Amino acid sequence: MSVVSNSVDSAAPPNPRALLAAERAQSKFDPATMNYFLETSKETSDTIKEFVQQLERDPIMNPGAKQYELTKEQQRVVTARRIARLAQYAETQNDPTFQGLRASIMSVFDPQVGTRLGVNLGLFIGCVRGNGTKDQYDYWYKQKETGYVRGIYGCFGMTELAHGSNVAGLETTATFDEKTDEFIINTPHIGATKWWIGGAAHSSTHCSVYARLIVKGEDYGVKTFVVPLRDANHNLMPGVAVGDIGAKMGRDGIDNGWIQFSSVRIPRFFMLQKFCKVTAEGDVTLPPLEQLSYSALLGGRVSMVMDSYRWSAKAVTVALRYAVCRRQFKSKSQADGSETQLINYPLHQRRLFPFLAQAIVFSAGSWKLEHTFNEVLDTLDKAVETNDMKRIFASIDAMKSLFLDSAALKSTGTWLTAECIDQCRQSCGGHGYSSYSGFGKSYNDWVVQCTWEGDNSVLAMSVGKPVIKAVVAVLEKGAKEKGSLSFLNNAAKYDNDEIVFSNTSDLLDFSNVLRAIEVLITRIGIQGAKVVADNGGNFDSVGAPSLAIAKLKAHHYFLEEFHRRLQSNEYKELNPYLELIGKLYCASNVIEKFAGDFLTYNVIPGSVAREITNVTLPALCAEVRKNVVAYTDAFQFSDSMLNSSLGKYDGDVYENYYNTVKTLNPPENHKAPYSAEFEAALNRGPLDARERYEKGAEVAAIFV
Amino acid sequence: MSVVSNSVDSAAPPNPRALLAAERAQSKFDPATMNYFLETSKETSDTIKEFVQQLERDPIMNPGAKQYELTKEQQRVVTARRIARLAQYAETQNDPTFQGLRASIMSVFDPQVGTRLGVNLGLFIGCVRGNGTKDQYDYWYKQKETGYVRGIYGCFGMTELAHGSNVAGLETTATFDEKTDEFIINTPHIGATKWWIGGAAHSSTHCSVYARLIVKGEDYGVKTFVVPLRDANHNLMPGVAVGDIGAKMGRDGIDNGWIQFSSVRIPRFFMLQKFCKVTAEGDVTLPPLEQLSYSALLGGRVSMVMDSYRWSAKAVTVALRYAVCRRQFKSKSQADGSETQLINYPLHQRRLFPFLAQAIVFSAGSWKLEHTFNEVLDTLDKAVETNDMKRIFASIDAMKSLFLDSAALKSTGTWLTAECIDQCRQSCGGHGYSSYSGFGKSYNDWVVQCTWEGDNSVLAMSVGKPVIKAVVAVLEKGAKEKGSLSFLNNAAKYDNDEIVFSNTSDLLDFSNVLRAIEVLITRIGIQGAKVVADNGGNFDSVGAPSLAIAKLKAHHYFLEEFHRRLQSNEYKELNPYLELIGKLYCASNVIEKFAGDFLTYNVIPGSVAREITNVTLPALCAEVRKNVVAYTDAFQFSDSMLNSSLGKYDGDVYENYYNTVKTLNPPENHKAPYSAEFEAALNRGPLDARERYEKGAEVAAIFV
Repeated sequence: MSVVSNSVDSAAPPNPRALLAAERAQSKFDPATMNYFLETSKETSDTIKEFVQQLERDPIMNPGAKQYELTKEQQRVVTARRIARLAQYAETQNDPTFQGLRASIMSVFDPQVGTRLGVNLGLFIGCVRGNGTKDQYDYWYKQKETGYVRGIYGCFGMTELAHGSNVAGLETTATFDEKTDEFIINTPHIGATKWWIGGAAHSSTHCSVYARLIVKGEDYGVKTFVVPLRDANHNLMPGVAVGDIGAKMGRDGIDNGWIQFSSVRIPRFFMLQKFCKVTAEGDVTLPPLEQLSYSALLGGRVSMVMDSYRWSAKAVTVALRYAVCRRQFKSKSQADGSETQLINYPLHQRRLFPFLAQAIVFSAGSWKLEHTFNEVLDTLDKAVETNDMKRIFASIDAMKSLFLDSAALKSTGTWLTAECIDQCRQSCGGHGYSSYSGFGKSYNDWVVQCTWEGDNSVLAMSVGKPVIKAVVAVLEKGAKEKGSLSFLNNAAKYDNDEIVFSNTSDLLDFSNVLRAIEVLITRIGIQGAKVVADNGGNFDSVGAPSLAIAKLKAHHYFLEEFHRRLQSNEYKELNPYLELIGKLYCASNVIEKFAGDFLTYNVIPGSVAREITNVTLPALCAEVRKNVVAYTDAFQFSDSMLNSSLGKYDGDVYENYYNTVKTLNPPENHKAPYSAEFEAALNRGPLDARERYEKGAEVAAIFV
Repeated sequence: MSVVSNSVDSAAPPNPRALLAAERAQSKFDPATMNYFLETSKETSDTIKEFVQQLERDPIMNPGAKQYELTKEQQRVVTARRIARLAQYAETQNDPTFQGLRASIMSVFDPQVGTRLGVNLGLFIGCVRGNGTKDQYDYWYKQKETGYVRGIYGCFGMTELAHGSNVAGLETTATFDEKTDEFIINTPHIGATKWWIGGAAHSSTHCSVYARLIVKGEDYGVKTFVVPLRDANHNLMPGVAVGDIGAKMGRDGIDNGWIQFSSVRIPRFFMLQKFCKVTAEGDVTLPPLEQLSYSALLGGRVSMVMDSYRWSAKAVTVALRYAVCRRQFKSKSQADGSETQLINYPLHQRRLFPFLAQAIVFSAGSWKLEHTFNEVLDTLDKAVETNDMKRIFASIDAMKSLFLDSAALKSTGTWLTAECIDQCRQSCGGHGYSSYSGFGKSYNDWVVQCTWEGDNSVLAMSVGKPVIKAVVAVLEKGAKEKGSLSFLNNAAKYDNDEIVFSNTSDLLDFSNVLRAIEVLITRIGIQGAKVVADNGGNFDSVGAPSLAIAKLKAHHYFLEEFHRRLQSNEYKELNPYLELIGKLYCASNVIEKFAGDFLTYNVIPGSVAREITNVTLPALCAEVRKNVVAYTDAFQFSDSMLNSSLGKYDGDVYENYYNTVKTLNPPENHKAPYSAEFEAALNRGPLDARERYEKGAEVAAIFV
C-alpha cells in the first residue's frame, strides 16, 4: 500500500515539477533570446546576469526566504550591511554610480537596499547634480567619494509633515544673513518638520534641504541647500533634531526620519546655485523655470517606470508557474481523470495574461523613457556649462514633455503594477498569502511607489490639464501642438459623436488602437474643456477625466514604442510571439479595460466590445497559453531574484514550500515560547474558586 | 517673531482640529441616530458601545498604536493573552458564544484575536454544530466548556496543501476498522498535509478533520471527524505531527499550522454524524446534500459580509477626516489665501465618497444576510431534531439560496473592501504608508478574506453558473424561477438589444436601477449561455461573465435591502441623507463602475453614461460633501476602534501623528543599535590599504 520515495507515502503525491518541464519541452521560442529584446540587447542582458550572479552568491547580499522573517530592527541592520557591501563592489569595479541598470536590478533583488541607497545616490546626489553648479557636483559627489559611500551619506529633505505634493508650499526657511554670509535654516513649526526623509533617522550625514529662500525679508520661493546633519563622529550637529518615523507598511529596512532645524547656520556656498544665485550683497538671480529644481524627482519617476516593468514581470512569473503546477477541480475535459491545471481555466488566463502582456509591453516604453531622460539631462547640462541660452530653453521644452510623459507613465505604471502583484497573489489562492510566496512583501514594498515622488493622482491630474488646454488651443485658436501631444492636431476631425471603428478586426492592428486612444483622449478632452468652462475655468473640476487621460496617454506611449521596437527587432523569429502579446494588450489592457469610455464616447460600438470580450480575448489567451512558460522564462529571473517558494524554476511547488516552512519554523518547536501562559489560561480552575467563592450559596446565606 | 503656545514656533502652525470642529458644527443630522439605522436598532447600537468600552479600557485588550510595532512572536503572545482575557469576560457574563455581534466587533477591534478565536468558536464549533448530532454538539461545546475557552481549543482541519477550493477533492483518509470500531486518520502524502490550519501550530487540542470516509474499501467522499491533537498536558498525540507555517502577509498573531496524521486512531463516535452515519457493522448512511457539511463555512462567509461593512466604514472614516484636516495647493477659490482642503477637490470626493456609500449601503445587506442565515440554520436544526424530512428539504432549498447569495456577497464585499482600504490609504498620500495610519495592517489583515473560506473567484463562478442555467431554463423550457433569481422570469422581455433606460433621471430611482441590473444580468446570462453552448457545455468558458454576474447580483442584494430599510425606517428625518447616499451608490458604484457592461449590452446609451460621469456624480458628491463628517461620525467608532494617528476624533492630525511617532520611537535614539557597524563602513580606510597595497606601484615594480 505504501509508496517509498524520499518519504513513506500511502499514495502517489502530486508531481508539479513534471508539468513545468512539459511546458518547457514544447516551447516554440528561445526565452534567452526574448530577453535580449526585453532588455534591448544581448549586452545588457548579459550585464544583468553578471550582476545578479555576484549578488546571489554573496552571503551578505542574498536575502533568501529568511528575509520574510526579519523584524524591522533586523531588516535595518541587514540593509545597512548590504549597502556597505555594495560600496565595496563599487570601489573595486570603479563604478561609483550604482545608478541606471545596477540600481534598477538592485531594486528588484532587494528593494530596501535599492531605496535606502537610492535616497543617497539618486535623490541627494540627483538634487546636487540638478541644482548645483558643476563645481558643487564635483565636490559633493566626486571629491567627497559619495559615489563609493564613503565619509558622507546624503538624504533628500523635500517633504514636510504638512506638505508633500505641493513642493512650492514648503515652509522651512533659509534666511540669508548678510552680516555673516550665511543662510539660517529653520523649521518654523511642527507642520514644516521634514518628514519621511529616507536615511535621516540613522544613516545620513548631509541633507539636500528644500527651503524658502528669504533675502532682505523677501520670499523667493523654494530653493535647495546642502545642510550637514551629523559630524564626522556621526553626532548630530547643533540645532539639528532628528527622529525615526517608525514602522511602515513596507520597506522597514529604510530608516525614514523626521528633521527639525532650529536656526542652523550654513555658509552661503552651501546653496545649490546652478540656476539660482545669491551674492554676498544679497542680490538674487532666479532660475528660468521653477520646475528645474525638481529634476531630481524626475529621475526617480523614470526609474519607477522601469521598476514597473521588472516588478510586473517578477509577480507574473511566480503566478504563471504556479498556475501551471497547481491542479484544482476535476473536469470532463481532462481525459486521464486528474484535476485541471489552473492555467487551463479561461478565467485564470483572463486574470493573468494581461499582466504578462503588461510586463512585456512595459519593457519597451521603460527603456525609451530612460534613454530620453538621460539625453535631455545631458543636453541641458552641456547647455548650462556653455551658458547657451537657446539650448537651455530648448532643453526646458524637452523637459516639459518629459514631465508630462513621466507623470503619465509613472502613475499608470505603478498603479498597474500594484494591481498586478495583488492579482498574482490572489491567483495563487491561500498560498499567495504566505510570506514565502513573496507577494506580501512585494506588495507592501511596492505600493509606496504610487505615492512617493509625486502622488499618482496629482501626477495624473498634471497630465490632464495640458491636454485639455491643448485641445482648446487647437480647436479654438488653430494652434499646432508639437511632440507627444501632436495627435491633438486632428481634434476637429473627432469633435463629433461618430463611431470610429466598427469592426473588431480593425482593433487588432496596433496603429488603429493607437488612433482609437487618440480619438478617445481628444473626445474626453473636449468634454473636459466644457466642464472647465462651466466651472469658471477651474481645472479641479476635471480631476476624474484627467485621470482617464493620463492612463490612456501612458498606454499610448507604451504601445507606440512597443510597435516601433517590433518593426526594428533584429530577432525577427520572435515577432509572431511578441505581436500576439501586443494584440492581447490592445484587446484587454486597452479596449476592454476602458470599454466604458470607448463606448461612452462612441469610439467603438457595443457590438465590438461584446465580440472582444466574448470571442477575441478567449482566442488570444488560448494562443498565449501555448508558450506561457517560455514567456515567463524570458524575463530570465533566477530563483534568488524571485525569492518565492511558489515560483521556483523547477516547479516543485509543494516540496519547495514545505521545505522552506520547515527550515524556517522547525517542527520541534511545537510548543510556543508562550505556551505555559496559554496552557495555564486554558486549564485555569473553575470560576467560583477564582472568585474566592464570594458569590456562592454560603456567602449568600450570611448576607440573607 | 516667535509664537509661543505649547512649543516655540516661528510662525503659526496649521490648525486641522478647527476644520473638523467646523464641519461638526454645521452637520444637519445626528450621527448617533444614524448609527441606530446602520446597526438596525438603538439597542444593538448601545450593546456595541458597551462592549467597545470594556475593550478599550482593558489594559490587556486595547491594542493601541504599539500594536503596529510588534514582531510576529510578540503578536502571537498578545493575541493569546487577549483570548484568555476574553474568555474571562465570557465566563462572568454567562455568554459562552462570542459569536454574532461580539465576534463581529472583536474582528474590527483586533482582527487577530477575532480570527484566532473564531477558528475555535466559529469554525471548529460551527463544524460540530453543522455536522454533529445534538448530543455531539452538547458534549463538545457545552459539556467541554469550549465556549468559555476552557480545557479544549479546537481548530478546523479542512484545507490541505494541494487542495483548498475543491473540498470534495481532499485526500486525507478516515478508514473504518470494523475490528476495533475505530477510524484510522491518515495523511497519504505531502499534498494531503493539512495546511493553513489556524491554531494548529501552538493552541489547539482538537481538530475537526475533513477526510475521505473509506469503509470496506469503498470511498464515500469527504466527511468530518473530531481528532484530538494534543493531550491534557498539551503534548502532541502519537501519530500527530504539527508545524508552524510561519510568516504571513498579515494576521501574524494567528498560529496557522500544518498537520500530518500517521495512522491516528479515533473511536467511531468521534465521527460527526448528523447527516452521515456508519454503524459498527460498516453500513453507511449518506447525507441528503453533500454541501450540508460545508455549512460551517457559510457562517464564515456571512460574517465576512458584516466585516466588509465595518472595515469599509473604518477605513473611510479615517480617510475622510484626514481629507477635511489636510490642505494642499492654493486655489483661486480659496478667498483667505489658505490652501485647499483635500475634501474640497472634486476628484478626492469621487475617490472616497463611493466608499462611504459602500459602507452605508453594505450595512443593510449585511444585517439581512445574517438574519437569514440564523433563520435558515435554526429551521434546519429543528427539522433534523424532529426528523421532519419535508422541512429538511425545504431548508435545503433555502440553504441553496443562501449559498448563492452569500457567495456573491462575500466575494464582492471583501473585494470592494480591499479596494476601499487601499484607496483610502492612497488618499492620505505618503502618511497613509505609515503603520500608525492603520491602513497597512488593515490591508494586510484584510485581504486574506478574499481567498479564505471560498476563494472569491471560485465563489463568483459558482454564482454565474446557476444564473446562466436559470436563464436557459426560463427561455427554453418556460421554467419559473423562485427566490432570489425570480427576476430572471422576465428574461424573454429583455432578450434583445434595445435600450432600456434612455434618461439619466430614471437612474436616480432605486427601483429602476434594480431593474437595470436585472436586465444586465439577464443579457450577460443569455450571451453566456451561447458561449457555454459553443464550448460543448463547459461552464469554465464563462468565468469572466460569471464574475460580472456575481458582482451585479451582490449590488442588487445590497441595494434592494437598503431600499427596503429606507421605506420602513423609523428615523424618517434621516431619509433625505440616506437617499442621497443611495443615489450616489447607484450612480457611482453601479452605473459608472459597470458602464462598460451597461453600454455593451445596451441597457443604457452612451449619452446617459456621459451625463452621469460628468454631471450627476459631481452634483451628488457636492451634496454629500455638506455632511461628510456627520456621515463618518455615524459609524460611531471611538479612537481605540480606529487605532489611527490620522483619523482621531479631534482632527489634530499633525500633533497626534507626531506624538505617536515620538512616543514609539524616542528621539534620544538618534544613533541606531547598529550604528557602530554602519559608521565603520562609512569611515573605512582607503581601498589600497584594505587591499594591503597589493595592486600598487611598488608591487607592480617587483613583478615587472
